[in-house]
Amino acid sequence: MTTKDMGGAEFEMVKVNRDRLMESLHETCEYGKGERSEPTETGMCRLALSDSDKQARDWFVQTTQELGCQTTVDSMGNIFAVRPGRISRDAPATFAGSHLDTQPTGGRYDGILGIHAGVEMLRVLQDLDIETEYPVGVVNWTNEEGARFPKSMMSSGVWAGEISEADAHNLQEVGGGAATVKSELQRIGYLGSVPASYQTMPMAAHFELHIEQGPILEAEKKKIGVVTGVQAYRWFTLDIRGRDAHTGTTPFVARADALLLAARMIVHAQHLAATKGALASTGILTALPGSTNTVPGHVRLSLDIRAPLDATVDELEEALRQDFVALSRGEATAFVDAPPDVGRPLILSWQTDTVSPATRFHADCIAAVSNAALSVLATSDASLYESPSSLIREITSGAGHDSVYASRHCPTSMIFVPCRDGVSHNPTEYCSPEDCALGAEVLCQAVLRYDQLRARAAA
Amino acid sequence: MTTKDMGGAEFEMVKVNRDRLMESLHETCEYGKGERSEPTETGMCRLALSDSDKQARDWFVQTTQELGCQTTVDSMGNIFAVRPGRISRDAPATFAGSHLDTQPTGGRYDGILGIHAGVEMLRVLQDLDIETEYPVGVVNWTNEEGARFPKSMMSSGVWAGEISEADAHNLQEVGGGAATVKSELQRIGYLGSVPASYQTMPMAAHFELHIEQGPILEAEKKKIGVVTGVQAYRWFTLDIRGRDAHTGTTPFVARADALLLAARMIVHAQHLAATKGALASTGILTALPGSTNTVPGHVRLSLDIRAPLDATVDELEEALRQDFVALSRGEATAFVDAPPDVGRPLILSWQTDTVSPATRFHADCIAAVSNAALSVLATSDASLYESPSSLIREITSGAGHDSVYASRHCPTSMIFVPCRDGVSHNPTEYCSPEDCALGAEVLCQAVLRYDQLRARAAA
Repeated sequence: MTTKDMGGAEFEMVKVNRDRLMESLHETCEYGKGERSEPTETGMCRLALSDSDKQARDWFVQTTQELGCQTTVDSMGNIFAVRPGRISRDAPATFAGSHLDTQPTGGRYDGILGIHAGVEMLRVLQDLDIETEYPVGVVNWTNEEGARFPKSMMSSGVWAGEISEADAHNLQEVGGGAATVKSELQRIGYLGSVPASYQTMPMAAHFELHIEQGPILEAEKKKIGVVTGVQAYRWFTLDIRGRDAHTGTTPFVARADALLLAARMIVHAQHLAATKGALASTGILTALPGSTNTVPGHVRLSLDIRAPLDATVDELEEALRQDFVALSRGEATAFVDAPPDVGRPLILSWQTDTVSPATRFHADCIAAVSNAALSVLATSDASLYESPSSLIREITSGAGHDSVYASRHCPTSMIFVPCRDGVSHNPTEYCSPEDCALGAEVLCQAVLRYDQLRARAAA
Repeated sequence: MTTKDMGGAEFEMVKVNRDRLMESLHETCEYGKGERSEPTETGMCRLALSDSDKQARDWFVQTTQELGCQTTVDSMGNIFAVRPGRISRDAPATFAGSHLDTQPTGGRYDGILGIHAGVEMLRVLQDLDIETEYPVGVVNWTNEEGARFPKSMMSSGVWAGEISEADAHNLQEVGGGAATVKSELQRIGYLGSVPASYQTMPMAAHFELHIEQGPILEAEKKKIGVVTGVQAYRWFTLDIRGRDAHTGTTPFVARADALLLAARMIVHAQHLAATKGALASTGILTALPGSTNTVPGHVRLSLDIRAPLDATVDELEEALRQDFVALSRGEATAFVDAPPDVGRPLILSWQTDTVSPATRFHADCIAAVSNAALSVLATSDASLYESPSSLIREITSGAGHDSVYASRHCPTSMIFVPCRDGVSHNPTEYCSPEDCALGAEVLCQAVLRYDQLRARAAA
């Protein structure tokens, strides 16, 4: 049977094997088993290019080869496993991709689920003896997390030509160790000779199944998020200079309290962002000199702003730049009163650390995911009491993923499944076997639909 | 001449030698010379019981002995230099006191000026051949700063019976060194055999000249602050538990942002304190886990509240305890709006670190300082254009001083002189030679006036 034979309802035949999927996932999670959260739940510590990452990679290569794939390792250690198609053995493949590395106190689903769903797709194709029109494949991207080597989505970034191979190779591990990306790629045997590039390894499309890492699907009782894009974000470091002063002897009017200004800025930024449907967050704050009876004269804080549209982020940044100046002069804003005793002015400076524009995924891939989700849910237990369409929503990804870089050079979309309490990057991260399997099935059907689309377009 | 011969205007004869005072101060500031702020200004790093503190102590003992004093070192290294009186050689002395130790990046006036003014008083008495009715003396208290051994006003506290000698002796130096107060007292030869106690070394009165360490006198163009007491203060550590969450994927409504709550608490506390004529300050804040794209789930912060009256501090603490609970539930207060999207509730806990009640100094000592100040200013250049009374104000000390513990067991008051920009605990700390000399003269005359008062009371 080829995908050509499978019109309309026949796609519903393509079911994944939930137990096999979960067994495969949990078995390989022995490689890099991390912190234990519950008696039956163990988180992951599978840092990029570590010994446990090598074990997981070896499993991936061996398993995909046994399933009839040819594997290519590029100069960043990205592994492309490709299963030949009927019309063409050599045309670019339609890929399912994600990553096998984790945070140091990560979970078993972030990235890992996407790879295992891809492997399950290969198994289903083999079980059903399906021959796709064009090649399909699974790609494991190196160091998506940026936890051990501090650049996230590193190797899809090199593939996309947005991060230089040399910069990536020379990245040193955090914590003061001497290992670099290149030395570790060599050490574990995953420094491939093919340059990591969309030119040498073009992809026809990239689909990625991922846990949402947020609470929206769970809160709205949705089963599948059809990811239409990734929101824009910008990271800044703000530096506030006031003056150290004795807390007992310095009246408010004589203070230049850098921490008070930071507090007013944090409150204002979140209010303003909320009114624009955006997010603003401060994750890092250091107050110096750090003594109970000294008013801090120096504060540094991070500011992370995000919104689905670049224009919204532009507007928010511009407004915050103006409003923070007013706050630093002791003035009120729409959301924060002036202090009763306005102190001395403070000096505020901005440093832009990261500008990540909004990503809009490809309409064809979004449609493939959306149609696959309707089809999968229509035949699932989940639709016994709810219509399939009510179990699906379009969603903008709040976090970055390898799909962002993939989308720069091929049609791309993602599939989100709910995770418990929206928690991720944590040993308690959890996605139910039912939801993992639903997501894997949508991934599989989306890839098959896209393969058909390609064939129809070529016809 | 005895002080008995010096009624009324004759006190005006008692002038200090400004140049001698400043030379003596700057010469001994070679012991523990610290960070350079300006070409002609060098701050101090004379940590308690260090080698440089020993040099300053040796100078103090030798100088006061040469001026006819008997010196006693107690079990805390406090040095009492006593000059005999006419009526009695053995009655408790009227003391001028302060401290020779400094902060690690301190200045040349905090504490040091008070000791040098006391020594200048002894020199003036010798110059003019004045015999006081009762003994007068100068006391150098050990480790007022609490910088090296982390308990401020340590040895006046032991003298007052409010800190145990054993606790003080066993205090270890900060920064992980093995030295204790006792081992360092022994090493530098200042572990005296007389127990540190108001019972074995009673004082008839304690006067202390000190820089204000705040901006009030300078701002109001006052020359002398007559210190009527020390404000009450309380220190707390507040712990906020929320939940770490991804900044990109977690809507405001799903967050338990510990840093946002801390920011709202800081803004609220300062507003509320200001309405009550009190102070509230946060000097320490740590936000964990400390990553740009993670909403902090755990924040610890210090809270320092102060007011001249204990009742005000009581009231402020009680109000803050209630209001912080409201804030932690996402509610508004009189000074802080509710966030537009109220997140999940957070858990706030309070730990009380220090409770220091308000101190009211003795009316007799306050009167002695006030009258001395009027007399000194009437004959000073400062009163050419201003009346003496317009150059003086009563003031409550915002910071703690050895005089707080002294006042528990003898009549006490303090004299404040302005310091530039209110800056202290900093190499740029500065008090002009004119103001140093005015303060020293007030100290000297206040001690003589008190001596006369004692004689009149005994007559």
